[in-house]
Amino acid sequence: MSPSEAAAPTPSQAGTRFLAEIHEQPEALERLLERDEDFARVAAAIQERKATTIRMVGHGSSDNATSYGVYAFGLLPRWTALRDSISLVVYYRAELDMSGCTVLALSQSGRTRDVVEYVRRVRERGAFTVAITNDPESELAHEADDVLPLCAGPELAVAATKTYLSTLAALGLLAAHCAGEGGRFVNELRASAGLLRALIPTLEARIGGVAVPFAFAGRMFVVGRGAEYATVREIALKLLETCRVAAEPMTATAFAHGPVAALDSLFPVWAIASDDETLPAVLEAVARARHVGATVIASGSAATTVAGSDYVLPVPAPPSPLLSPLLSVIPGQLFAWALARTKGLDPDEPQGLSKVTLAR
Amino acid sequence: MSPSEAAAPTPSQAGTRFLAEIHEQPEALERLLERDEDFARVAAAIQERKATTIRMVGHGSSDNATSYGVYAFGLLPRWTALRDSISLVVYYRAELDMSGCTVLALSQSGRTRDVVEYVRRVRERGAFTVAITNDPESELAHEADDVLPLCAGPELAVAATKTYLSTLAALGLLAAHCAGEGGRFVNELRASAGLLRALIPTLEARIGGVAVPFAFAGRMFVVGRGAEYATVREIALKLLETCRVAAEPMTATAFAHGPVAALDSLFPVWAIASDDETLPAVLEAVARARHVGATVIASGSAATTVAGSDYVLPVPAPPSPLLSPLLSVIPGQLFAWALARTKGLDPDEPQGLSKVTLAR
Repeated sequence: MSPSEAAAPTPSQAGTRFLAEIHEQPEALERLLERDEDFARVAAAIQERKATTIRMVGHGSSDNATSYGVYAFGLLPRWTALRDSISLVVYYRAELDMSGCTVLALSQSGRTRDVVEYVRRVRERGAFTVAITNDPESELAHEADDVLPLCAGPELAVAATKTYLSTLAALGLLAAHCAGEGGRFVNELRASAGLLRALIPTLEARIGGVAVPFAFAGRMFVVGRGAEYATVREIALKLLETCRVAAEPMTATAFAHGPVAALDSLFPVWAIASDDETLPAVLEAVARARHVGATVIASGSAATTVAGSDYVLPVPAPPSPLLSPLLSVIPGQLFAWALARTKGLDPDEPQGLSKVTLAR
Repeated sequence: MSPSEAAAPTPSQAGTRFLAEIHEQPEALERLLERDEDFARVAAAIQERKATTIRMVGHGSSDNATSYGVYAFGLLPRWTALRDSISLVVYYRAELDMSGCTVLALSQSGRTRDVVEYVRRVRERGAFTVAITNDPESELAHEADDVLPLCAGPELAVAATKTYLSTLAALGLLAAHCAGEGGRFVNELRASAGLLRALIPTLEARIGGVAVPFAFAGRMFVVGRGAEYATVREIALKLLETCRVAAEPMTATAFAHGPVAALDSLFPVWAIASDDETLPAVLEAVARARHVGATVIASGSAATTVAGSDYVLPVPAPPSPLLSPLLSVIPGQLFAWALARTKGLDPDEPQGLSKVTLAR
């Protein structure tokens, strides 16, 4: 192959890395489980320091994963976990008392500038800092008190998939160890990896037929609630980055009293319906969207219960409800891959993006 | 006038209440200041109980205001303030320890069901609960330990304006009293009301010319960072609810490494540029948007410093940077009013919405 031929991907090459990494997710999860002892160690350190307010920071997919952490820590050890403001600490230099706080700094590359700077400052202010990163030799890892490796393997596509899923798993596993339920959670994660291994090829085989009709959709709402809000955000971000769809993430409840007014038949809604306590709020939001004629895609473990959906992308029931977001994101990843190809875009290298977030 | 004539607003009537309420904002702020003693009392109670972790909840514009609260409490008394998850408490019934926490429950009507339910539960779990509402006789006010009235007067347009601004002021004033700086903040709020009184008519006179070219814009990004993130969210929500524009709020930094890939010349960006420590991040985000040919609207106290903007909507410098969001939201409110009229929509009663959020 000549250099000029190698410069741009051919249509058959576009998205191959992105798709390969979607398929690698079960294996990445299993690699993370081999590091279970690291998670037990960090959980013990958090307990010992009584640093039970959990502050999470990250950008992009890492930030989306923090929305899962709120529920993992809230439901397992029953601790307050929050997405912290990086700008409050880094730009405004607010001198908050960080004793009693554990900081989880999320960055695939471990090179995100303002996350590294945030860790430096909060450590000075008394926080126990833990880097959760795919590169345990990175600057972020060196700056933090401790490190939890994602073990996702090299992620080459610019749009993240397996590092997002492994970050969810890492937050869940750490929360479970903090609650003294690490053993159970390990078993559930392993079972989830098995479910993913069966789900991904099955869904891949039929996703094209669902994605193609959306070739000219310019905007979309993605709605869900509770633990699935992380999934809502991540699917919206994939659609935006890889398919150039203005996809806005929203809780089902926020959507239902305000933004629903913007809908019409050319403004589709993707609803994530999982079989947990938030399902009635999601069903109500979808009913309002249907009422104004919006096209509805329903995904999640309770997708088939969403009345009047135009497209249904169910996923299997997880071993326990808190594992649900690890399965629910798959339809969004595969849909983004299929829609990008339909539109002649390359999800491996979306125009104008680079893999490492050098956020100022 | 016959009943049938009264049923639908004529073009000249559409948006008159919305516009009137935009103009009433300085007066609403001044009424809030008359209740300064209530804020001092609640701040003293928070101090006495050492309930210095601030949890805020609300939907829609109230939720947007919580993003301001994070900075007001972080920068003034240097306390941790967070937008709490309603679903964690109300749907999943997570039994978090709420001692040491103050809950600020934000609801214009005081009738938002899941906010009332949230207050009931966290109060049982040891939180000090404060309702911030426009109706001090509402169910929410009765359910909470204490009440801070917004004093905004009746808000008749479905899309909120003055209750949003008064909620910002209430959060700032409470945070200032918690920091022992209530006196200074009162003076700054009063000065801000004066600035608003001059700004609103001036901006109204020229906003039509800026809004009309966006008559067919279907989507938009609204970006900013730090304390202005509340403004970013509120302007995006106004555009969505009143103008049916898929406007997505985003921090300047999140926008610059990901969603920027979705831009083209038909996908405009509204940047809120205020003269504070986050300005470089906003300028960098706009530069990336300009690079791909996006149309840029710049607003805020540093709007004129945004190189290459197509439209510039400056606001005066506030008495101190933390007051900036009270001025920055005005261009967005007036733009939404003007664009809705251009599109023949009625911001007083957007199709499909009702004033009271009866969130389940």
